[in-house]
Amino acid sequence: MAHTSARPPQKPTPDSSRRSEKSRRAIYAAALTLVTEVGYPKTTIEGIAARAGVGKQTIYRWWSSKADVLLEAFIDLSARTAEATARPEVVGKQSPYEIPDTGDLEADLKLVLRAMVDELLDPAFEAPSRALAAEGVVNEQVGREFVGKLLEPQLQQYVKRLRAAQEQGAVRTDIDPRIALELFVSPLAQRWLQFTGPISYEYTDRLVEYALYGLAPRGPAAR
Amino acid sequence: MAHTSARPPQKPTPDSSRRSEKSRRAIYAAALTLVTEVGYPKTTIEGIAARAGVGKQTIYRWWSSKADVLLEAFIDLSARTAEATARPEVVGKQSPYEIPDTGDLEADLKLVLRAMVDELLDPAFEAPSRALAAEGVVNEQVGREFVGKLLEPQLQQYVKRLRAAQEQGAVRTDIDPRIALELFVSPLAQRWLQFTGPISYEYTDRLVEYALYGLAPRGPAAR
Repeated sequence: MAHTSARPPQKPTPDSSRRSEKSRRAIYAAALTLVTEVGYPKTTIEGIAARAGVGKQTIYRWWSSKADVLLEAFIDLSARTAEATARPEVVGKQSPYEIPDTGDLEADLKLVLRAMVDELLDPAFEAPSRALAAEGVVNEQVGREFVGKLLEPQLQQYVKRLRAAQEQGAVRTDIDPRIALELFVSPLAQRWLQFTGPISYEYTDRLVEYALYGLAPRGPAAR
Repeated sequence: MAHTSARPPQKPTPDSSRRSEKSRRAIYAAALTLVTEVGYPKTTIEGIAARAGVGKQTIYRWWSSKADVLLEAFIDLSARTAEATARPEVVGKQSPYEIPDTGDLEADLKLVLRAMVDELLDPAFEAPSRALAAEGVVNEQVGREFVGKLLEPQLQQYVKRLRAAQEQGAVRTDIDPRIALELFVSPLAQRWLQFTGPISYEYTDRLVEYALYGLAPRGPAAR
C-alpha cells in the first residue's frame, strides 16, 4: 500500500539501493517531525529536505508534492505502529490491519479495537496523525486523500469481517456493513480527535457490545 | 449559554446598549470570517478589531483572548443555525438543542439527527466550525474548551433523552447513556469531519435503527 506514487530508480546496484532506502527513511522522519512541530501549512519540501540532509531534487524525484511525501510517511508510520502494537494473534497476517476471524465476532472486534486504542495512545503516532487529521478537516483534498489511502482500506477490513459474520448468522443480513462498522469505530475516532472523552479497553469493549446487541431491550416481545 | 466570559458595561443607556450590541455582532461576524479565511493560528485580536471596525480595547474589554471571542462567536452562530434549521416540532423549546420526548425514542432521535444533518451542511456554519474543529484536533486546550462549552452541553441532551427512555423501558437499564449516544452521533461527526462518507437523512435514520436494535439477529434464541 505504501509506495503508490513514485519509487527509487529502477534496477539499482545494492549500494545505491541502500542509499535510497536510507534517504527515504530520513525523508519520512523529517516530514513527520516537521509537520508535528510547525503544522501542515508551514511544512515545505525545502524544510523536509534540509532536515533530512538531502537535496530538494531527491524529494521531487520520488514525490510530486508535500502532501504525497507526508501521506506516504504517515502510511509507513501507521503500518509500523500497527505491527508493533498488534496482538500476537494478529502478527504474521498479510496486512497489519487484517481482522481475525475466530468465528466469535464480538471477541474479534474487541481485540482489534483494543489494538487501535494502543495505536491512538502511542506518542510516536499521535502528534503527526493529529497534524494530518487537522489539515484534512479544513482541506477537503488532503482529507479525501487521507481517507482514500489510509482510513478506508482499514475500514474495508471491518466490512470484510462483518460480511463473514453475516454468512455465519452473527449479523443480520439486512445490515449495511459499511455503515455498521461506524457504530464502534467512529465513537473511538471522535473521542480521540476531539477530546470528547477518555479512551480505554473497557470503553471499546462496551461499544462493541452496544453495537452488536443494541440499546433496546431484547426478548420475544421486542422488535 | 453564550455569554459566560464578559458582558457589555452594566446599566447602559438604551443608546449605548444598542451600540454595544451592534459592536458585539460585528466582532462575532469578523471573527468567524477571519478564522474561515486564514485559519485559527493566523486569526488575531488586531485582525478581528480591524475587520469589525472597532478598537482593540473594545474587544479586550469584553473578552480575554482570541479563543474566547471565537468560541463565543461560534456558540452564537451555532445557536442561531440550530434555531433556523430546527423542525417546527422543536421550535419554541427552551434550548435549540433540546430533544423532544414524544414517547417514541426512534422517531425523536431520527428527528434531531436530521436537524443535525441540516446544520452540518449549512455553508454559514460549515467553514468556521471546520476551522475551530481543526484547531481543536492539534490544540488540546482549544479542543477541550470547544467540547466543554459547545459539544458536551448538546450531548447531555441525548443523555437526558436516553435516561427518559430507560425509565420508559425503551432502552436497557444496564446501558451507559453517555456512551450509547455516541453510536449515532459520532458516525455522523466523523463523516462530516473527515470526509469518510456522504451525509443524508437516510444515513442517520439507519444509524438510529442499527444502534437501537443492534447488528446481531434478534429472537428468542439470541442473547
